[in-house]
Amino acid sequence: MKNLLDSLHEVLLMGPGPSCIPEAVYQALSRPTIGHLDPLFIEIMDEIKQLLRQVMQTGNRLTIPISGTGSAGMETCFVNLIEPGDEVLILINGVFGKRMQDLATRLGARVDTLEFEWGTPVVVEQVKKQLEKKDYAIVAVVHAETSTGVRNPVEKIAELVEDSASLYLVDAVTSLGGIPVETDAWQVDALYSGTQKCLSCPPGLAPITFSERAIEKTLKRKTKVPNWYLDLSMIINYWEGNTRAYHHTAPVNMLYGLYQALLCITDEGFENVFDRHRACHLELVKSLEQRGMDMLVDPEYQLPMLNAVKIPQGVDEALIRRRLLEEHRIEIGAGLGPLAGKIWRIGLMGHTARSANIRHLAEALDDVILKGLGTG
Amino acid sequence: MKNLLDSLHEVLLMGPGPSCIPEAVYQALSRPTIGHLDPLFIEIMDEIKQLLRQVMQTGNRLTIPISGTGSAGMETCFVNLIEPGDEVLILINGVFGKRMQDLATRLGARVDTLEFEWGTPVVVEQVKKQLEKKDYAIVAVVHAETSTGVRNPVEKIAELVEDSASLYLVDAVTSLGGIPVETDAWQVDALYSGTQKCLSCPPGLAPITFSERAIEKTLKRKTKVPNWYLDLSMIINYWEGNTRAYHHTAPVNMLYGLYQALLCITDEGFENVFDRHRACHLELVKSLEQRGMDMLVDPEYQLPMLNAVKIPQGVDEALIRRRLLEEHRIEIGAGLGPLAGKIWRIGLMGHTARSANIRHLAEALDDVILKGLGTG
Repeated sequence: MKNLLDSLHEVLLMGPGPSCIPEAVYQALSRPTIGHLDPLFIEIMDEIKQLLRQVMQTGNRLTIPISGTGSAGMETCFVNLIEPGDEVLILINGVFGKRMQDLATRLGARVDTLEFEWGTPVVVEQVKKQLEKKDYAIVAVVHAETSTGVRNPVEKIAELVEDSASLYLVDAVTSLGGIPVETDAWQVDALYSGTQKCLSCPPGLAPITFSERAIEKTLKRKTKVPNWYLDLSMIINYWEGNTRAYHHTAPVNMLYGLYQALLCITDEGFENVFDRHRACHLELVKSLEQRGMDMLVDPEYQLPMLNAVKIPQGVDEALIRRRLLEEHRIEIGAGLGPLAGKIWRIGLMGHTARSANIRHLAEALDDVILKGLGTG
Repeated sequence: MKNLLDSLHEVLLMGPGPSCIPEAVYQALSRPTIGHLDPLFIEIMDEIKQLLRQVMQTGNRLTIPISGTGSAGMETCFVNLIEPGDEVLILINGVFGKRMQDLATRLGARVDTLEFEWGTPVVVEQVKKQLEKKDYAIVAVVHAETSTGVRNPVEKIAELVEDSASLYLVDAVTSLGGIPVETDAWQVDALYSGTQKCLSCPPGLAPITFSERAIEKTLKRKTKVPNWYLDLSMIINYWEGNTRAYHHTAPVNMLYGLYQALLCITDEGFENVFDRHRACHLELVKSLEQRGMDMLVDPEYQLPMLNAVKIPQGVDEALIRRRLLEEHRIEIGAGLGPLAGKIWRIGLMGHTARSANIRHLAEALDDVILKGLGTG
C-alpha cells in the first residue's frame, strides 16, 4: 500500500493553527518512548509544570497539560468547576465564546451571556452592569478570539470580577506565548490553552492552570466530576507529590514535544518572543494595506498572531486559499460563522511569526489574487 | 537550562504499556505538520479509518481515533451512549472493569455489576442468569484485563447479549493488534482501544468503532451529550462526508504515528502478528517457569500480551523493578489493587513481542533477583 506520509511536504502554516514547528520540536517528538511512571519522565513532567508556570505568569501549583487538544482544556476547566445549577456568565464575541456557552449548558449550568458583534471586543461597561445585577459562580471570557482576531480586555474585566465572588475563567488558546498572559496579576482562577498556536508544538495537548480557589471548588464539589478522564482531583495525583498515582497513560512523546517547545520560547526570552509577534503583525498589516486590503478589527484590539483581513471585492476566496496551498504551499484560514466568505484569517503564531514568511505570503497573494480576479 | 531529552535512552518496554515503538513510527511522528483540514491530511484520515476497520474486523463507518488516550475512548463510548437513568450491566474482574463502573455512574447510569475474582475470567453462566432477570441498555466488559492478564470470553458473552436488546460495549485497549478482535462477528456495538499497547504507537489516541445501532442511540438522544469534546454527533462531521467540518484541531502528528503503526501491522499480516504474540507468550511462560515462577492466570484465559507472574517468596518486588530499569533498562509493571505486591505484569505488546527481548529479560531477572534475594 502506498504510504501517504511520503507525500507530506512542509507547508507554511499561516492559518489559525496549527502553526509552524521548530525542527527541535519535531526531533523531540521522535525521541524514545519511556514509561509514564519512569523517574526520568517524572522529571520531565516537573520541568513542564515549571516552564508552563513561567509562560502563564503564575505560581499556581496545578499547572499541567491535559491529554487532549485545546478544547479538552476548555472542557476540563468547565467540567471541574461547574456543578448543576451554577450561574455562569459568558462573554461572547466569536466562535470560542459560543463554544463555551454550548459546553457549559451541557454541564447543567445556568448560563447568561453578553454578546458583542464579531470583530469587536467585549464592552467592559456592559460586563460591569451585569455583575452589579447578579452574582455568578463563574465569569468566562476568551482572551484572543481566534475566529475574529480580537484581543478582549481581560485585564479590565479582571478588575470587575475581582470585586465579586465569581471565579474568573479565561481561554488563552491563541494568546499564550504570543502576548503576555498574566494569570496571577489578573487573578484568573482557571485558564487553558493549546499547544498548536503560539507554543509551536503540534496539536494534542491543552495546558491549564488552576488557582487555589479553583482547586478548592473542585475538591469540595457535592457531586463527582461527570467526566472520569478529565477529573482533576485524580489527575493531580499523577502530576504531583512524591508517589505518582497512575490515572491514564500520559501521551509521552507529545509531552516531549511540549517540553522542547517551551524550552525554545524561554531560550528566546518572553519579551523577544512578544516583540517578534508585534513586529511581524505590523509588517503584515502594512503589507496587506499596501495591497488595498482592510483589517477587520480596530488596531487597539488587533491580535498580533491572528489577523482578520477583509476579502477584496470580486475575489473567489476559497479559490485563493486553494491556490495558495496547492501552488505556494501556504495555508491561511477561512472566516467562520457570520464572517465566512468575508475575511481571511492569517496566523503569525509562534515559529510562523517571521519576516520572511510575511514576504513569501505577500508575493504568493500577488500571484494568486491576480489569477483569482481573472477567473473568480 | 539542561535539556532532559538529552538524557533519554531506549528502554525495553515490557510493562503494561506503552510498548516498544518501531523506528518507522518514530519517524512518522516527526513528519511535517500540516493543517487539520488540508486535503492530504483528510486522505490520511480516510486511510486510518480503513486500516482501523481492518484491525477491528468491522465494516462500521464510524471507526475513528479519538483525540485522547485509551481512557478517553472509554469515556467516549459511555458518554455518547448513556442517558441518565439507563440501566447498565458491567462485568468486573480488574481495574478497567472498576473504571467502567466509576465512569458510568458519574454519567447518571443505574449500574449493576457482576464481580469476579481478579485473575479469573468473567463466568458466562452468571451473566446469562443476570440477563434473564433484567433488561439493560448496555452490557459492558473488558476483553483483555490489563491489570490481571485475563482474556474474558467476550465471544461467549456476545451470544447472550445478541439475544437481548442491550448494546454490547467492549474494552479492547490491550487486545487490539495482539489477538483477534472480531467486532462485527461478535456484534459489538461500541468498542474502544488505545495506541500504546499492541498497536505500538506512543500513547495519545483512542481508536473506537460504533455500530449503526450505537450511532442511532447517540443521534436520537433526548439530552445532548454532556461532553462537548467527545460528542460523536459533531466529531463525525469532521471524519466523514465530502465537506469536513472543523470540530477541534486534530492531533496531526500523533495521527501520522497511528497511520504508520497500522501500516506496519497490515504489512506484517494479522495472522503473523497474532502468531508472534502467541509464540512469544509461550516462550516467556516457559522461561519464567524454568526459573520457578508461577503464572497467575489459568492457561485457558491467559493473554499473550500481558503476563501476570507471581512474585517469588522473599523478593523485594519494587527493588527488582527498579534494578531492572536502572541497570538493564527494562521496564516491567507492578500489580494493581488487590494484586499490588503479589504479581509483576510483563508485557509482550506489539513491537515488544520478540524472542530476543524475552531472553534479555530472563538474563536480567537472573541478575537482579539474585541481588534482590541478597538484600531484600
